[in-house]
Amino acid sequence: MSKEIKKIGVLTSGGDSPGMNAAIRSVVRTCSYHKIECVGIYRGYQGMIEGDFIEMGPRSVHNIINKGGTILKSARSKDFRTPEGRKKAYDELTKAGVDALVIIGGDGSFTGAEIFNREYGFPVMGIPGTIDNDIFGTSHTLGYDTALNTVVECIDKIRDTASSHNRLFFVEVMGRDAGHIALNAGIGAGAEEILIPEADLGLDRLVESLMKSKASGKSSSIVVIAEGDKIGKSVFELKDYFDLNLPEYDVRVSVLGHMQRGGSPSCFDRVLASRLGVKAVECLLAGKSNFMVGMLNDAVTLTPLLHAIKGHTEIDRELLRVSEIMSV
Amino acid sequence: MSKEIKKIGVLTSGGDSPGMNAAIRSVVRTCSYHKIECVGIYRGYQGMIEGDFIEMGPRSVHNIINKGGTILKSARSKDFRTPEGRKKAYDELTKAGVDALVIIGGDGSFTGAEIFNREYGFPVMGIPGTIDNDIFGTSHTLGYDTALNTVVECIDKIRDTASSHNRLFFVEVMGRDAGHIALNAGIGAGAEEILIPEADLGLDRLVESLMKSKASGKSSSIVVIAEGDKIGKSVFELKDYFDLNLPEYDVRVSVLGHMQRGGSPSCFDRVLASRLGVKAVECLLAGKSNFMVGMLNDAVTLTPLLHAIKGHTEIDRELLRVSEIMSV
Amino acid sequence: MSKEIKKIGVLTSGGDSPGMNAAIRSVVRTCSYHKIECVGIYRGYQGMIEGDFIEMGPRSVHNIINKGGTILKSARSKDFRTPEGRKKAYDELTKAGVDALVIIGGDGSFTGAEIFNREYGFPVMGIPGTIDNDIFGTSHTLGYDTALNTVVECIDKIRDTASSHNRLFFVEVMGRDAGHIALNAGIGAGAEEILIPEADLGLDRLVESLMKSKASGKSSSIVVIAEGDKIGKSVFELKDYFDLNLPEYDVRVSVLGHMQRGGSPSCFDRVLASRLGVKAVECLLAGKSNFMVGMLNDAVTLTPLLHAIKGHTEIDRELLRVSEIMSV
Amino acid sequence: MSKEIKKIGVLTSGGDSPGMNAAIRSVVRTCSYHKIECVGIYRGYQGMIEGDFIEMGPRSVHNIINKGGTILKSARSKDFRTPEGRKKAYDELTKAGVDALVIIGGDGSFTGAEIFNREYGFPVMGIPGTIDNDIFGTSHTLGYDTALNTVVECIDKIRDTASSHNRLFFVEVMGRDAGHIALNAGIGAGAEEILIPEADLGLDRLVESLMKSKASGKSSSIVVIAEGDKIGKSVFELKDYFDLNLPEYDVRVSVLGHMQRGGSPSCFDRVLASRLGVKAVECLLAGKSNFMVGMLNDAVTLTPLLHAIKGHTEIDRELLRVSEIMSV
Repeated sequence: MSKEIKKIGVLTSGGDSPGMNAAIRSVVRTCSYHKIECVGIYRGYQGMIEGDFIEMGPRSVHNIINKGGTILKSARSKDFRTPEGRKKAYDELTKAGVDALVIIGGDGSFTGAEIFNREYGFPVMGIPGTIDNDIFGTSHTLGYDTALNTVVECIDKIRDTASSHNRLFFVEVMGRDAGHIALNAGIGAGAEEILIPEADLGLDRLVESLMKSKASGKSSSIVVIAEGDKIGKSVFELKDYFDLNLPEYDVRVSVLGHMQRGGSPSCFDRVLASRLGVKAVECLLAGKSNFMVGMLNDAVTLTPLLHAIKGHTEIDRELLRVSEIMSV
Repeated sequence: MSKEIKKIGVLTSGGDSPGMNAAIRSVVRTCSYHKIECVGIYRGYQGMIEGDFIEMGPRSVHNIINKGGTILKSARSKDFRTPEGRKKAYDELTKAGVDALVIIGGDGSFTGAEIFNREYGFPVMGIPGTIDNDIFGTSHTLGYDTALNTVVECIDKIRDTASSHNRLFFVEVMGRDAGHIALNAGIGAGAEEILIPEADLGLDRLVESLMKSKASGKSSSIVVIAEGDKIGKSVFELKDYFDLNLPEYDVRVSVLGHMQRGGSPSCFDRVLASRLGVKAVECLLAGKSNFMVGMLNDAVTLTPLLHAIKGHTEIDRELLRVSEIMSV
Repeated sequence: MSKEIKKIGVLTSGGDSPGMNAAIRSVVRTCSYHKIECVGIYRGYQGMIEGDFIEMGPRSVHNIINKGGTILKSARSKDFRTPEGRKKAYDELTKAGVDALVIIGGDGSFTGAEIFNREYGFPVMGIPGTIDNDIFGTSHTLGYDTALNTVVECIDKIRDTASSHNRLFFVEVMGRDAGHIALNAGIGAGAEEILIPEADLGLDRLVESLMKSKASGKSSSIVVIAEGDKIGKSVFELKDYFDLNLPEYDVRVSVLGHMQRGGSPSCFDRVLASRLGVKAVECLLAGKSNFMVGMLNDAVTLTPLLHAIKGHTEIDRELLRVSEIMSV
Repeated sequence: MSKEIKKIGVLTSGGDSPGMNAAIRSVVRTCSYHKIECVGIYRGYQGMIEGDFIEMGPRSVHNIINKGGTILKSARSKDFRTPEGRKKAYDELTKAGVDALVIIGGDGSFTGAEIFNREYGFPVMGIPGTIDNDIFGTSHTLGYDTALNTVVECIDKIRDTASSHNRLFFVEVMGRDAGHIALNAGIGAGAEEILIPEADLGLDRLVESLMKSKASGKSSSIVVIAEGDKIGKSVFELKDYFDLNLPEYDVRVSVLGHMQRGGSPSCFDRVLASRLGVKAVECLLAGKSNFMVGMLNDAVTLTPLLHAIKGHTEIDRELLRVSEIMSV
């Protein structure tokens, strides 16, 4: 039988994403609502090992729901990958009277949580926080919707200048292993072509498609490219290729970079964060552990951490077809 | 057996919403992709009656995916409610060689479409376009996600000044019959209380809750109120009540109004519009008619127009509980 | 000879405006740069009377340059209008070792500062913080530029829906005594007519102008109205008048309200705040007192507080002509 | 005596900037107001040579005041640098009955205009349109204020993630020859250091300053770098240097790129564009030629094109000191 939970620790880990603060707020306030204590842990697992804790009440999370980043800061911890590190973390938690953990982060963070739970029987729950949307067990990760809007707003601006000059732009967006951002933001921004890790468009087909597009009367074009696309060339190499082989195109490059991780979260991400925070805490109080909370079919659901880590969310291939039709 | 479709008409009807232009673009380009013609109909059913049509090709919808409003304009038509009006509309469509219609609008617009289909056997498909999200058969209507972000950004600004002055704000948002906007944007904006048509909080409980909130150390408060809330007082009457009975509150009022209908659509609404436009046209081409296309469980689905009209999407009551917990 | 200054107090007073936090940050960091102490005073003069002070160093103002509102909160103080109140304030300042004050606010706040200086010889400097831009001695007050952008973005959204429905919108913006916001944001938003306190357009001319505008092919119109316009009717009364006498117009009303005071400051306001904060502190250190710092002709300037209070910035009447030409 | 002007041509040339559309609108409507004709010339001087013209009336510029880019498109023309090209342009203008030109662009564009005026006595007026703000004779060029806000909003997002991870970011902004954007947006974004072409901070001092900043308790830092800064290293080379020599910093790079040229113009740029357009046309009608219209000391002013070309606007060196104080 699980021990009664009186104090929950919350941390953010891995790459930060918009909505993490809203999730922290939700965890803290749900604890308060259920009259249990809450402790914030700074800098993810590294702060856990170092005992870098802070008591949090409902007023400590005042006016953070709309802030990007994470007030608890984030980090990647090498020490937590060692048994010694995890032992130290366990000792610090015990010393502080923390009975259970809510981990806000990506699959790397969940892997750590799952091992920690296995080794020490320590109750843990995961909330998926990453802009990449590549976590199995949820249709949306925290920050993904905001990142899509950020990318689309940037490309809207780029299109202003692309249209004015009849230029071709290669725009690189985040997504080393997953094309969710590129595919959805590409359709949202009306990109003529979208290159993602999951689909091999091929350089020849890209060129052919752009030529068709030009022939159809389009004077400017946007190609959205995920970091880890299948063609395997960086946007700069693509530009070089075009400059050499297709000089009739006036090519420019834009790498959107880290701004995609920041910004005030969208309403969707704030509501999602609020819901997942409530569920994570209430699951712990109900004696559940080792799950990730997520959204599937518009409802809050639980997925075993192990599944969340092992699987990943497939892109919706129908969107590739929608993109092709929209580029007619 | 249904006649082969060679020319599709598209119109926007009822209150406009962000994403309507993206849906028009999608319908036009999907027609072009399938090598059939497309005709834009201005000012909804009224323009249909008056034969106010325009031929549209893929370039006519260039650079509109990011624009609010509707390039086809919208209107409410009294004439279309009469058999004579519908007869005239039918004649104009026939004259122009239009074989089928895609109607982008709300349930009033779908009612007209359904009657028209019944009377003339004219193939129609509906795309749900309204910020209110009150249409049965889809988890999201076009424009709803954008409106939520608009409201949340406005309330973020209001909170800046509310916090600076320790004030209580009553913020009225759209939603005469449905509390979706108030409930979701209220949670997203961190509102202390949310009043919606579907739930009777009662004036006494509102006052009690605000007093508890003040006692807990909050110096400013935001109350989000749907137009058609159950308390039945306008935000101005609420202010008068507080000024008279609870003078310790420094109350201000803000009615967000029509700006909620405008603005560049969010990525979500653009992608949704693109998907629904493709589906609506391809259904017509496949001989289907009299359905609304929508999103349920993250997939494009069909709902008979008659069901879409008769039913409506319930608010998620779990969100009322989330809101209460967040206000701790 | 003026006493050496070792500790400066800073407060925000009156209506809050975007850029106040950036100004606080600048005052605090300039103090630190010159190795003197800085004290934040909460809730304007009221907090001064109550001794509600906080020591501030460069890290206390970390990450506030981009935040709307004021972390020191603002208030209007009745007590400070009495000699007893000012005596108490003086005693609190003396007790805390504060040698000089920087007041961020509008002319009401400067009036208080000027009297306080006269009575106690206490060194004071003013920074103009109000969205209304109605203070003599500066081309721009803090928050004015941001408010203009906020208003223009709101009207852009309203125009989306106005255009879609061929409607006439009356949009009320802030400015009880001054038409700066209405005039500039009206031109920026492409308003067909602008009503301001400084110019009497007259109801007849408004109607005539709108009819001409309609005749010229415009299907929708935006009229921007300052709170204190000369016609003297509220936007709601104007709507009633049109509904009764000009039913061919489909009139809607929008009152933008308090959101105009909030939001993240524009780059202009952040730079202005940074410059004025430096100047205010360095003037005090140089033995100057009783001035307002402002911008004139793109340079930081000093204006005696008494002049800033007595005068006010005229609207640029050339803009009325520009507005008329733009509405052709 | 100058010939009476009955038809004015307007074009945009060089790099596009937000506000160009607002300026086109102003030129077109001012022509209409004064009952003279207006012709839009596509793709700058190249379209002039090719006779790519379009008649424009007040309704042709409907709803463009808020759009980025330029509806007339822009281009750089090699042909116009040759006497033959200019001869052809002159012939096309004559054929179309164009009597005078308004050129919206940067100093390259003005050079062309000035030569054309000298060779053919053709009346020309310039409106400064470039985000770089490097044109002599105006405190603000069209698009500069908007670009500052774009940059500041991007860096606000980057700071979210920089703060969460205690990172050092090098952010490259536009400005090959001028540091206006870097200096103002750097102060606006609260950058710890700003590197511009006009001032030689030096690599040693940069490192020293960042170390001091770290010692003072700052955990994350933003360094804003103009493209053409004096250190002469690209942001990527700077990162390599830090990775090698100062591995205690976790360095990331962001190149904001072309999005800085796009986006909906700020209220300031829209009003500026409206004013300059009126002035340019009215000067031509009054028989003036060969001037650039600009803003100096908050008033519209004329500068001979030759001066505008030869000089350039100095950065405000006081801002370097403000930046240093703010980084305390």
